[in-house]
Amino acid sequence: MEVGEFELIDRISSSFHTPKGVLGIGDDCAVIPQRQGVDTLVSTDMLVEGSHFLLDDVSPWQLGWKSAAVNISDIAAMGGRPTSTFLSIAIPENLDAGWMEEFIRGYKALSDRFNVPLLGGDTTSSPGGLCINVTVVGEISSGRSRLRSKARPGDLVCVTGTLGDSAAGLQLILRNVERDEDSKWLIDRHYCPIPRVDEGLRLSAMEGVHAMMDISDGVGSDLRHILKASSVGAKIDIEAIPHSPQFLRVCSRNGWDVAGLSVGGGEDYELLFTMADDCKPDIPYTVIGVICPEPGLVWEGGDKDYSGFRHF
Amino acid sequence: MEVGEFELIDRISSSFHTPKGVLGIGDDCAVIPQRQGVDTLVSTDMLVEGSHFLLDDVSPWQLGWKSAAVNISDIAAMGGRPTSTFLSIAIPENLDAGWMEEFIRGYKALSDRFNVPLLGGDTTSSPGGLCINVTVVGEISSGRSRLRSKARPGDLVCVTGTLGDSAAGLQLILRNVERDEDSKWLIDRHYCPIPRVDEGLRLSAMEGVHAMMDISDGVGSDLRHILKASSVGAKIDIEAIPHSPQFLRVCSRNGWDVAGLSVGGGEDYELLFTMADDCKPDIPYTVIGVICPEPGLVWEGGDKDYSGFRHF
Repeated sequence: MEVGEFELIDRISSSFHTPKGVLGIGDDCAVIPQRQGVDTLVSTDMLVEGSHFLLDDVSPWQLGWKSAAVNISDIAAMGGRPTSTFLSIAIPENLDAGWMEEFIRGYKALSDRFNVPLLGGDTTSSPGGLCINVTVVGEISSGRSRLRSKARPGDLVCVTGTLGDSAAGLQLILRNVERDEDSKWLIDRHYCPIPRVDEGLRLSAMEGVHAMMDISDGVGSDLRHILKASSVGAKIDIEAIPHSPQFLRVCSRNGWDVAGLSVGGGEDYELLFTMADDCKPDIPYTVIGVICPEPGLVWEGGDKDYSGFRHF
Repeated sequence: MEVGEFELIDRISSSFHTPKGVLGIGDDCAVIPQRQGVDTLVSTDMLVEGSHFLLDDVSPWQLGWKSAAVNISDIAAMGGRPTSTFLSIAIPENLDAGWMEEFIRGYKALSDRFNVPLLGGDTTSSPGGLCINVTVVGEISSGRSRLRSKARPGDLVCVTGTLGDSAAGLQLILRNVERDEDSKWLIDRHYCPIPRVDEGLRLSAMEGVHAMMDISDGVGSDLRHILKASSVGAKIDIEAIPHSPQFLRVCSRNGWDVAGLSVGGGEDYELLFTMADDCKPDIPYTVIGVICPEPGLVWEGGDKDYSGFRHF
């Protein structure tokens, strides 16, 4: 950490609760006791102004929420419990202290919802745009992480929640469509996703749940990672993909391609998982297809290649 | 992680060795087994183009080395062993694949020196400047972390290595002074610092070593953090601060203030520690002062306030 940030870091730090036995902000490192029989989970994600968000479109509170949410979602994707985050932020000169305070308020709102303390970070000035990096640390009982490589032929392919909401929200933002209740709800899904931590914990507690990841790039693209890592294929029923009524109404009003947005659109941060066909998780989920021994992803009930988009 | 980065990540990943029992790049999170009696250490640092470095001055290899080094130094500062790093990088369009490969070569050279695998990261495009964030994870036997808050009255104040070399190197870069052997050596100290991991491990193994941190902002500024956290003061003998012959020769040739550069100049990444006066660590170090019960930092043998500089 750098010297001049200390005031900012002190202010951030004092608004978070550090668990007993853990050393948080204020020294060279955070110090977290380990326990036998537990695995540490670590993931990191960078959000860059102009690539991932536009400052004119997103409020600081929303950006703070989302920065924490998309990272904590990576812990949910393994079936783990998030235990701390580390926030680095490069701040352009034109952003004032009020902006930063709102950002931290949003970051803290999401963190508090899942009881995740901020244990460290780095704040610095940026001569260019805003750049945010979050590292999230979590834990899970040894060996219980749900990996992308564990899908088995015969597994059902399932998702939590509804797909396409975030992509539709992004379209509404980019096209500056008039805001009604439906569009506000979809935009909120885009800016303020809720990581499926509780659902992930329940799923990783079940032996029958095999592969899991979160849907960040679109189910079409993300599922391919599971198939490749597991050396299997899948048949997916496009008609089975779950949609929110808000999404369907907005697509209908604007003439948008329902399947394209929900298969190819990213950032839903729902969970995508495969499980034995006799497995009955006690959470809301939808079966959208089945894992096959032959490689390849076959879409049934649709006529396009919904393989997701590349944004790098 | 994002889709389009997979080629880059695969290339980076395959050049690092992942320890047995650890899951590295390729899933939503890295998975690292915990052990009873051990603490996890975590720190994160962001390096921003235009604030921390200028692309015209630093080679990609040097920047890769330094990005890893300054983070691993935070683990050394606690007396711990670095066990993994996580690299996020936002890459401007004008940087080509060759630049990135050289960056990774430098990052890997430092990482290999301390046997630290890269276990995850995020690469993305940047419409602005280059932004690098590294998170380092380490470990240490439970409760053996050397905190800033543990200095005691009567402790000797000590440093490893020599101070001022990096600050002099930076001056040579900024003033574009003709490069001789001395100046090349100092510039190398600035761009390619060597974190004091081995020294930190030896120091944290000794009961008599109390407070410790690394010198990133200048000993004048950094020591104040130890004094504040420990509620003590110190008397420091300016004349006792250790200098390299290269530093002294370059200061003499250019008429630079030896004490000012070595007390106020940052980025030496040497260790600053306090220890009982009967403690005899088996590493090269220099005693520069003593901890006093009264608050305040008194400089003896100098006539200025060498309290370091603020760069935020």
